[in-house]
Amino acid sequence: MKHNFGAGPCILPQEVFGQAAAAVLDFNGLSILEVSHRHKDFVAVMDEAIELVKKALNVPSGYSVAFLQGGATLGFTIAALNMQRKHQKAGYINTGTWASGAIKEAKKAGLEVLEVASSQDANFTYIPKEFSIPSDLDYLHYTSNNTIYGTQFKAAPRTALPLVCDMSSDIFSKEINVSDFDLIYAGAQKNLGPAGATLYIVKDEILGKSTASFIPTYLDLKQQIDKESMLNTPPVFSVFVSMLNLRHLLANGGVQKQEELNMAKANLLYKEIDENPSFKGAVQVEDRSLMNVTFLLSDPNKASIFDAMWKDAGIVGLPGHRSVGGYRASMYNALPLQSVQVLVDVMKEFNRIG
Amino acid sequence: MKHNFGAGPCILPQEVFGQAAAAVLDFNGLSILEVSHRHKDFVAVMDEAIELVKKALNVPSGYSVAFLQGGATLGFTIAALNMQRKHQKAGYINTGTWASGAIKEAKKAGLEVLEVASSQDANFTYIPKEFSIPSDLDYLHYTSNNTIYGTQFKAAPRTALPLVCDMSSDIFSKEINVSDFDLIYAGAQKNLGPAGATLYIVKDEILGKSTASFIPTYLDLKQQIDKESMLNTPPVFSVFVSMLNLRHLLANGGVQKQEELNMAKANLLYKEIDENPSFKGAVQVEDRSLMNVTFLLSDPNKASIFDAMWKDAGIVGLPGHRSVGGYRASMYNALPLQSVQVLVDVMKEFNRIG
Repeated sequence: MKHNFGAGPCILPQEVFGQAAAAVLDFNGLSILEVSHRHKDFVAVMDEAIELVKKALNVPSGYSVAFLQGGATLGFTIAALNMQRKHQKAGYINTGTWASGAIKEAKKAGLEVLEVASSQDANFTYIPKEFSIPSDLDYLHYTSNNTIYGTQFKAAPRTALPLVCDMSSDIFSKEINVSDFDLIYAGAQKNLGPAGATLYIVKDEILGKSTASFIPTYLDLKQQIDKESMLNTPPVFSVFVSMLNLRHLLANGGVQKQEELNMAKANLLYKEIDENPSFKGAVQVEDRSLMNVTFLLSDPNKASIFDAMWKDAGIVGLPGHRSVGGYRASMYNALPLQSVQVLVDVMKEFNRIG
Repeated sequence: MKHNFGAGPCILPQEVFGQAAAAVLDFNGLSILEVSHRHKDFVAVMDEAIELVKKALNVPSGYSVAFLQGGATLGFTIAALNMQRKHQKAGYINTGTWASGAIKEAKKAGLEVLEVASSQDANFTYIPKEFSIPSDLDYLHYTSNNTIYGTQFKAAPRTALPLVCDMSSDIFSKEINVSDFDLIYAGAQKNLGPAGATLYIVKDEILGKSTASFIPTYLDLKQQIDKESMLNTPPVFSVFVSMLNLRHLLANGGVQKQEELNMAKANLLYKEIDENPSFKGAVQVEDRSLMNVTFLLSDPNKASIFDAMWKDAGIVGLPGHRSVGGYRASMYNALPLQSVQVLVDVMKEFNRIG
């Protein structure tokens, strides 16, 4: 038994793996990999996946859902191109790597970017909280959770501007208020499904209002939504497995129940980090991520001992991102509390043998 | 037993389905769906997939291979953005739907497009052959096989211009001379793998030479190739299954042997179409596709009888594209000769009962 703390692509429910494998062999008489995306059986899958997203997140009327490709990296560009308006200027909150990437792509797309807030001064170990947002901006963009540093917004920033969020690494982990947003995008490969699909939740009002001089058809959310995610061949298998995973989520209490479970996992591990003198947390306490728990050894010289211990326990994916070091326990929806307990037990034992 | 003549996503070898399903359950102790793309086990998969593409198509040195997302539709834009040079003008051969789409995206990307040849005058039922190509163009673009009309170039057009080809629906079906091309792109979901990956074969010389004013990072082939298809999270499972399929191809005689098999299948079916008075081919004989065989009933009023017969025989995916009508037997690499024989037998029986 392995305990997969990997940062993504990451663990999904074992039941979903089983159903996905079965469909690779037989989905209504064919492999799910050889079914036409235009076949009614797959159209039904796409429709259900979209409906389940709406149900899981209480998406209000006036919003549409689409499954595209290209990950959040292409999403950076899609957001900038579709949200450009008369000011040709956008505000971005810089919480590290992914936000920085979003800023870079917005600039490439011809927007002037105002960094309304940044935590770069402390190597992105906190979430900026007090800052002013000018009104002459087309939109405000932020990244809800930073997988590398292990920080997370506890609430959406308050603003009168259209709000855009890269929610790749915490969507479906907790309740959100979709009506706060004009655009949400998220790579599937954390709490939604396998790599290869990217989710967009779009306020219909924004569609077709861009002032960008050039939007390739694939990047035009209006055309993608008009075609119901079938503008061209969608990532069939990734959408199918996302649907299976959403079914599993809703059959097990939905996002509300999942949020409780994620809190319990995070509390268990952060408590150990705070109480165990052999470890220390890597970011400001109030900004700690429930998804990616980053921590350091009090004595870095003992890393080889600790590493051998967690590997022996069947834990995988624990090293921190190469740009930060230390450790990162990613605890996405499908990671069982039991796996966190295994890690905590190893940490206790490591401290005991000193 | 179903005989899958679908136009794509389409049949892959049964052995590949089996291996893919097994890896969803267990790939070195985890599901292939939960493995990090940065893990050495997946990096090895990506490396092998790229090497097998090179091996299968005898890709010469000086070319690179990348796996991206977005299908050929995003490829239309990627081609135009990366191949733009001083003329800001490109030549396109218009053989129908996909070529028309490529033209539209090139224009959006700011290029002037010269349609150097078109078969629109006869509803795209032939491949244009005699035409002149001006020299003041940045590149020449064509679509090697048209899945909807069932036409196929038997050889690459001769030109001194940089040659760009959308090879989505016949790549790996026959030998090609990669050195004829500056850029080849292809959606995976015909002869390569499941939907969700898109293959690029790029002459290294072209990288970084674009005159486009704006290339999003995701669409920049130089950056994608510099990052070895790991600029962001790749479509892990689609790349993995593509690798399995390429292994299968090379273990079974490679593209050369596959071309013989495809010829045998096409000969069997086209012979029946030509000899059976109840049917007629839909396109010019010399331009017939080996991948997508389009044909019509001599008496369209008998469609319901024929339809019932092939469905009874376990055949799926035979209706023609909605824009053309009639029938389309897509015979990609993995379709067995036996399936074609089943279709031919149905056609003979249909004619006999007249």
